[in-house]
Amino acid sequence: MTRRVAVGLEYDGRAFAGWQSQPPPLRSVQSLTEAALAQVADHAIELVAAGRTDAGVHALAQVAHFDTPSRRSARAWMLGANSHLPADVSITWAREVPPHFHARYSVEARTYRYVICNRSARSALTAGRATLVHAPLDVERMRAAAVALLGEHDFSALRAAECQARSPVRRLTELGVERRGEWVLISATANAFLHHMVRNIAGLLIAIGQGKAPPAFAAEVLASRNRQLAPPTAPADGLYLWRVRYPAAFCLPEAEPPDGL
Amino acid sequence: MTRRVAVGLEYDGRAFAGWQSQPPPLRSVQSLTEAALAQVADHAIELVAAGRTDAGVHALAQVAHFDTPSRRSARAWMLGANSHLPADVSITWAREVPPHFHARYSVEARTYRYVICNRSARSALTAGRATLVHAPLDVERMRAAAVALLGEHDFSALRAAECQARSPVRRLTELGVERRGEWVLISATANAFLHHMVRNIAGLLIAIGQGKAPPAFAAEVLASRNRQLAPPTAPADGLYLWRVRYPAAFCLPEAEPPDGL
Repeated sequence: MTRRVAVGLEYDGRAFAGWQSQPPPLRSVQSLTEAALAQVADHAIELVAAGRTDAGVHALAQVAHFDTPSRRSARAWMLGANSHLPADVSITWAREVPPHFHARYSVEARTYRYVICNRSARSALTAGRATLVHAPLDVERMRAAAVALLGEHDFSALRAAECQARSPVRRLTELGVERRGEWVLISATANAFLHHMVRNIAGLLIAIGQGKAPPAFAAEVLASRNRQLAPPTAPADGLYLWRVRYPAAFCLPEAEPPDGL
Repeated sequence: MTRRVAVGLEYDGRAFAGWQSQPPPLRSVQSLTEAALAQVADHAIELVAAGRTDAGVHALAQVAHFDTPSRRSARAWMLGANSHLPADVSITWAREVPPHFHARYSVEARTYRYVICNRSARSALTAGRATLVHAPLDVERMRAAAVALLGEHDFSALRAAECQARSPVRRLTELGVERRGEWVLISATANAFLHHMVRNIAGLLIAIGQGKAPPAFAAEVLASRNRQLAPPTAPADGLYLWRVRYPAAFCLPEAEPPDGL
């Protein structure tokens, strides 16, 4: 009998070419995790993930599923695979799920967080894990701009040229901007995101927060559907796949963010 | 005219043999920072630090001073040195200080933080930067134990065999234990610490939090002055030099911790 198992994944994206399997010598989270789970399962494993994160992007709570005839406890999947994984990726939980669960298609909402270190000195403890912005950011301006992006829109102006999604329409249900001392956090929740959409939103809000454009510029960019109008894509360093929400009936655990370092 | 300059330093201790200069090929924060500042000063630089952190220990707010005849702006010291430093160490501020300021002897209080990831799965995002404890920690027990260590005591039972301090007496003014979800944070403030003192305190509190010993064991260990009685030293991974306090008259900036990653 084939079982479907879901796992939670945490990774430090700095040394990865992204989630998706790549030809060697590129490191991908998918390949390494499939190989580690295969050791536990005693057969080849194929993973389907909630979000195919790009090179350099981190995840606190990626979710993936695989099918297996092997019977192992949740603890055995997790600890067994972790013993075969390098330090920069870990399985945080495992759980058997019903066969109609799908890590990608069952998703109700994805939340990404973009972390900005807003000071003149770069931060050694968050090197590659936060984006440095020297000029002081005005969070009120960023918030005012964010309002225009909320809701269902054609996000063509904020998608990558290579984006393969059939429709450019997405429904953004949360776009929060919060300052914590020298740190500015952008939280974005949507049913799904276009390629580079969060990094393009971050780039737009950063430009507005720096005073390079008025808050109303966000609505202008969005309405133009023209990628050329938007400021540059913000670096991958500060981006985290933060939370993936599924229907409550699946009873999946949620990651708890490491707070205060 | 010789000037005295103080700098704030942040580093990720994972790839360092500690603060203090070491013969190559060992990497030390001191050597790399002295070399970087020398490039800006155009002469050799000798640094004196508030705390000589061990191998693998991190710093959010180390403070050091040096003397120089060269005149540079605070910004030039900081940005110039940072451009010569690797990603895992950075100068967060620089400030000219009066000649009687001494990074080590002027200290009023040092605060270390010990970060524990208390769950069954290891954390990829904090690999080498937090200590994993599988068994659930009872924070109330840890707090009850901590009370016995507060104040001025002979800490012989909690110092390393190699500790070179003349007196084993230290004055512990704060020993807090806080749970934030899956994370347990120990904050310790004292005028000064003995070698491995914070890691030995962490090891003791972890053992008590896991139920291996009653809270009263802390007072027993302390009174024994016998290192053999105390549980093992906790790993360097979770230890951060978090804050160094000087008399307010020096007007030195304080680091702001990266909150929520």
